[in-house]
Amino acid sequence: MKIASFNDHRIGVVDGNTVYDITSALPEFLSQLPRQRVNWLVSHWEELRSKFADYRNSDQALPLASVKLLPANPAPQHVFAAPANYQKHIGELGDRTVTKGGRSAREQGFFLKAPGSLVGAGEALLLPKGSQRRFDHESELAVIIGKRARNVPRARAMEYVFGYSCLIDATLRIEKGVAEEERSMRKSFETFTPLGPWIVTADAVADPSSLRNQLWVNGELKQDANTSEMIVGIAELIELVSSVLTLEPGDVIASGTPEGVGPLVVGDQVRIEIEAVGDMTLPVGECEQRAPRPY
Amino acid sequence: MKIASFNDHRIGVVDGNTVYDITSALPEFLSQLPRQRVNWLVSHWEELRSKFADYRNSDQALPLASVKLLPANPAPQHVFAAPANYQKHIGELGDRTVTKGGRSAREQGFFLKAPGSLVGAGEALLLPKGSQRRFDHESELAVIIGKRARNVPRARAMEYVFGYSCLIDATLRIEKGVAEEERSMRKSFETFTPLGPWIVTADAVADPSSLRNQLWVNGELKQDANTSEMIVGIAELIELVSSVLTLEPGDVIASGTPEGVGPLVVGDQVRIEIEAVGDMTLPVGECEQRAPRPY
Repeated sequence: MKIASFNDHRIGVVDGNTVYDITSALPEFLSQLPRQRVNWLVSHWEELRSKFADYRNSDQALPLASVKLLPANPAPQHVFAAPANYQKHIGELGDRTVTKGGRSAREQGFFLKAPGSLVGAGEALLLPKGSQRRFDHESELAVIIGKRARNVPRARAMEYVFGYSCLIDATLRIEKGVAEEERSMRKSFETFTPLGPWIVTADAVADPSSLRNQLWVNGELKQDANTSEMIVGIAELIELVSSVLTLEPGDVIASGTPEGVGPLVVGDQVRIEIEAVGDMTLPVGECEQRAPRPY
Repeated sequence: MKIASFNDHRIGVVDGNTVYDITSALPEFLSQLPRQRVNWLVSHWEELRSKFADYRNSDQALPLASVKLLPANPAPQHVFAAPANYQKHIGELGDRTVTKGGRSAREQGFFLKAPGSLVGAGEALLLPKGSQRRFDHESELAVIIGKRARNVPRARAMEYVFGYSCLIDATLRIEKGVAEEERSMRKSFETFTPLGPWIVTADAVADPSSLRNQLWVNGELKQDANTSEMIVGIAELIELVSSVLTLEPGDVIASGTPEGVGPLVVGDQVRIEIEAVGDMTLPVGECEQRAPRPY
């Protein structure tokens, strides 16, 4: 099942080119905190799944092309991310992102992206106005956590997965000796985490460790890999993060990017597709207003 | 006014040794999402402040010592933190946290801590079970954001402050060549962000840029500085973070730590006090269960 967040944080099931609005399956009080709807539905999935399975009974069926897709989860408590998780990507950026010895996510652990950097498939990726810096695309499979998870051994980790999305991890590159900002900031600019176009529930993905992961810029294929090439697999990533703290329902883990990372500039169209999950294309624009601080 | 989160996410006003339970001033539906209560009250402060001002009318007045204080905000969307923001702290850790050239938060920007690492004044700071690594204390003034803030120039930044708390930024230290995990992970272990004992509203702090900031371990004074020694002041920190993304009501900015950072071990008592804000003492314990991954 494909579950989308759209328009003013309504919830829908996507089937073909139609979105079935199923917001009414959720408690009415969530209209007071609409950004929490996806966290709630993930937390209460056992009691809600039968209502969602009857999505065709919704009296609100909309053409998919007519809605604005928001982030697959607009307000997760955490967005975790694996820093170097495809062997061929390690080294391609020199020692700017991967330090000596080619250490992977296994040794480096995770970093955090700000939930405030999320956007949906119906939005745009915006670069700081007037910037002369380099901004890169990274194509990633996102894992959506289904249950509170703490100290989960990898053998049981997949029980904690609610579903999957596509995630573009946009990044402000550092320049050694010129500008070397914190990684979690460089990746948290507003709109720098497109997540979507929806969540595909785990039961609809036969083998998440064998999915093609591709990204194009202006129609040119830039990244093309398979999640089978990940160094730290999904189960081990959940073990890793949950060995540090408790994952909450709705939390996102970005599982790392393969080789082919490259720049994005204003006017580009960036497209990500992950097999069995979906695809989305976002325009790359520029912020309307120059910030008080330049980047 | 001192606003506390306590017991099962109830909201109270602290006056002397008494907590006046004022949870009923908030909408009833929040009992479904009690961790969101502080974000809600900050977002709706203009309409709620008169009810809070009448706190003595609460029919639930409890001895402060009888309640369990939770994080001053249990579920902010973001916890931002300044990496190197007191001149005397820069250099004391060698190049392990501050790279060549003594770059401060002005150049490095912010990093993120996981909201899942927050605990309150009534809880404990827990180290990973059986760890041989070094864990440090950092004593910080926390700023609680009051309004959505984007591209705010520093001259107007203080209008966006709701209040202040004490924050201990506990940290797993790296060892060059041995273990060098991501900063946002090393600081996000569960319980590694004590935040409390309450929020003091901004109107009760005459000058946040001139507050004594002290931390003791087992009664021995380890850190003793003044927020006037911060390199990047509060207004500039808000400008900095809001130049990257939108701050949400309830978001936390940890403003950096002065010199005197040192280790914490199981059995320690760590106490933080920030002038005009409050103080809290937490025991340092150990997780009950060894995690699947060692740290």
